[in-house]
Amino acid sequence: TSSEREGHSSTQSSHRLLAYSDALISIIATVMILPVAHTKFEGNEELKQSFQLLLTTKIAVYLMTFLIVTVAWAAHIRLFQVIERIDDCLALLNLACMMLITFLPYTFSLMATFPEKILGILLFCACVMVIGLIQAVIVIYAFSRPFLLNEQIQISENQAYYKHHILKVIMRVPIMCLFASIFSFIFFQLSYVILAIVIFLPYISQSLKWCRSKALGHSLEETPDSMLFYTYHPNEPLSKERVEAFSDGVYAIVATLLILDICEDNVPDPVMVQQKFGGSLVAALQEYGPEFLAYFGSFATVGLLWFVHHSLFLHVTITSRLMGLFNTFSLAFVGGLPLAYELTHEFPRDSRNALEAVQISCVIIFFAGVFQLAIWVAALFDERRTLHPLVRYGGRDHAFMLAKLALYPCVSLGTFFLTCALSEFSTSIFHLMQLGVPVAFLLLRLLVSVGLALLRPLLAALRKQPEAAA
Amino acid sequence: TSSEREGHSSTQSSHRLLAYSDALISIIATVMILPVAHTKFEGNEELKQSFQLLLTTKIAVYLMTFLIVTVAWAAHIRLFQVIERIDDCLALLNLACMMLITFLPYTFSLMATFPEKILGILLFCACVMVIGLIQAVIVIYAFSRPFLLNEQIQISENQAYYKHHILKVIMRVPIMCLFASIFSFIFFQLSYVILAIVIFLPYISQSLKWCRSKALGHSLEETPDSMLFYTYHPNEPLSKERVEAFSDGVYAIVATLLILDICEDNVPDPVMVQQKFGGSLVAALQEYGPEFLAYFGSFATVGLLWFVHHSLFLHVTITSRLMGLFNTFSLAFVGGLPLAYELTHEFPRDSRNALEAVQISCVIIFFAGVFQLAIWVAALFDERRTLHPLVRYGGRDHAFMLAKLALYPCVSLGTFFLTCALSEFSTSIFHLMQLGVPVAFLLLRLLVSVGLALLRPLLAALRKQPEAAA
Repeated sequence: TSSEREGHSSTQSSHRLLAYSDALISIIATVMILPVAHTKFEGNEELKQSFQLLLTTKIAVYLMTFLIVTVAWAAHIRLFQVIERIDDCLALLNLACMMLITFLPYTFSLMATFPEKILGILLFCACVMVIGLIQAVIVIYAFSRPFLLNEQIQISENQAYYKHHILKVIMRVPIMCLFASIFSFIFFQLSYVILAIVIFLPYISQSLKWCRSKALGHSLEETPDSMLFYTYHPNEPLSKERVEAFSDGVYAIVATLLILDICEDNVPDPVMVQQKFGGSLVAALQEYGPEFLAYFGSFATVGLLWFVHHSLFLHVTITSRLMGLFNTFSLAFVGGLPLAYELTHEFPRDSRNALEAVQISCVIIFFAGVFQLAIWVAALFDERRTLHPLVRYGGRDHAFMLAKLALYPCVSLGTFFLTCALSEFSTSIFHLMQLGVPVAFLLLRLLVSVGLALLRPLLAALRKQPEAAA
Repeated sequence: TSSEREGHSSTQSSHRLLAYSDALISIIATVMILPVAHTKFEGNEELKQSFQLLLTTKIAVYLMTFLIVTVAWAAHIRLFQVIERIDDCLALLNLACMMLITFLPYTFSLMATFPEKILGILLFCACVMVIGLIQAVIVIYAFSRPFLLNEQIQISENQAYYKHHILKVIMRVPIMCLFASIFSFIFFQLSYVILAIVIFLPYISQSLKWCRSKALGHSLEETPDSMLFYTYHPNEPLSKERVEAFSDGVYAIVATLLILDICEDNVPDPVMVQQKFGGSLVAALQEYGPEFLAYFGSFATVGLLWFVHHSLFLHVTITSRLMGLFNTFSLAFVGGLPLAYELTHEFPRDSRNALEAVQISCVIIFFAGVFQLAIWVAALFDERRTLHPLVRYGGRDHAFMLAKLALYPCVSLGTFFLTCALSEFSTSIFHLMQLGVPVAFLLLRLLVSVGLALLRPLLAALRKQPEAAA
């Protein structure tokens, strides 16, 4: 194949293509929170019902988009774990694929706004089918130039079998979408069911396999060990690099979404400043005080959640599919933070709505933190394979890592109950919490060091006893 | 220092921290195009003057923000070329620094909207001074734990000299900002001059040095060779990885900015669809046809510009400061694309404004492409150091790379003149161009391959002659 490689334009490392795709996908996944956050409450009590309905619809669209985009992203990871090098043609095909993925959120908005029209379903199915076809073309193209493939497949004898298997898995989704679009003409409710099946296909097929293996009595391990790709096993590794790149993208977008709004909406109008505040810009900006506080608060919270994520993944060696799933859930809640902050400064202080807004923020932060903790717990179950020795059970940094991961869930839970008890100070308590947590992270380091310093002689004494006994 | 390292919490590779910072900075740099793109033209002829003034102000804010943010980013690169490993404390300090950098665009908006009030200047100077202080703290902290530093400094004997030099360079900017903020109380125009000097400081100091060396007659090379960092020499290498990460961020944001607007604004209202279009969703969506065309067109253009950038940087081995500067200019024009596309579908077809919008788009694409070409030309001047052998002058892919880089400037120039001649078809020509270019990229590959296949025997014949002569 060396002469073949010579003949073509130089093949390229796929690293940057994947980083760019991760950036695009993470933006698209997070962006649908904007229509939710920008929903304005009119203040009319009669409209409250329809407002809540609208908000619920939009939140559902956001969550569905996040889910579907991360499913598309997982498929993309799997594809480019098989294809490790690219050339110009693959790069262009991948860009076409990305263009269609970024269009998916719009089809979802259509579906949510017009649930009874079939246009949304048809557009969505068309996009997914074209994406599937492009991916199939990518696979066929790559298998026709084997030097682009993963080395394990390159040296394998049954390349044809791999190709067949991968194509079969890839084409499953477009074929189901074809059925969904056909059924939409007859009985459109069924189409939604089929689409839901498509999204949860990996999990459904996995649990079916598990049930069958339990029923027939032989263990899961008997699946042919040679098939390392496209297995949908919860232990199947996901590229850790890409999980990090995707998470970074989401955290970066969420951290900056509020400054976007501030730059656009919160620059006062010169005429208004002259008339209303007698030309005093400082007085005019004081109106926007809560917005600035919300911005710095949200940046600090998102930044620190990123910091916890970063600390955790420094010590993770392999990311399994299950850890990836928990990571996705955590990111979905992180993506909800701008909504919470918009709510925090939307309502006047000391109103009942302000209390609700603060409590929603606490709940969102709590779940974002808890799912980060869940990643670690999932990793601990298979710690020899997935974790660095330092943070394994009994490792030197085990306690420190646990403290880092537990800080946000504990603090947000504490704030939640405190605001319940002292509801008139809810906003102040919340802002105090936001400012306090960075300090807590710095203190945590000291506290854990002190704690470890105190524990070490104790542990040493305990260790000596068995030695003496031996 | 091994025991020191043991005593502290584990040091960490800075890779992901830098990737996250690059993502944040690229978002902030690009985001100020949104207020420009969202400026609505009222259609009133009397207001046209004030509309143009507003647009010019906002474009100036965008360009200034882009410039200042990339200057901050270059300073960040330089800092983390010295500090190669991080710990938790540095990560938190860096996040604080990032928070202030993301706030800079707002202070610029204030300055542009209220050029005669000093609050904008004061806020900006305060941010820059705090950023400078945090960076100084980072440097002092890192030099107190030398295992965090670059290996060259770690083994060097005059660490104290390095520390002194770096602190001196870093503190120059906050000190000038202190002066600017003091002068703002006395004579605020001077503050703007000082701020402009701060931004162009590296280039000014470099050209002063060059003039002095010319005047005194000895060459530039006599500066102590040991000082590899913070030299501001145009050949000083910038981390290629970070230039790529920053560019990826900008391209990704720009590619998705339009889908953001589409998802928020272009989902028709169910009541409106019922009343105006008799319940036909397809008819309602046809209203938005130009928006969708603009989205796919902009995604394709940005995606292909990214593709050219990617192809170029695959063959670049070292990025110099000059190449980084051209890259920044190219990205600033890429960031302007959403504005051009908003304009394209804002105005009715066949009006004079539509022609202007199409031509502005062409100009923006032309400059984005030309500055990419400039990166390559700058690289060719020092090709042994900066380029891969394949694309050097005379290399196998030299012609192909030139063709790739020249495609967009040529096509946009052609479209520009074609729209001048056939002004009534301007929009159609523009859309045809956008759809044609991806095909052109695929054909380019074929054409260059065919061209090379034809040239090869010719070149071989030419090569044989000198050999025969020898």
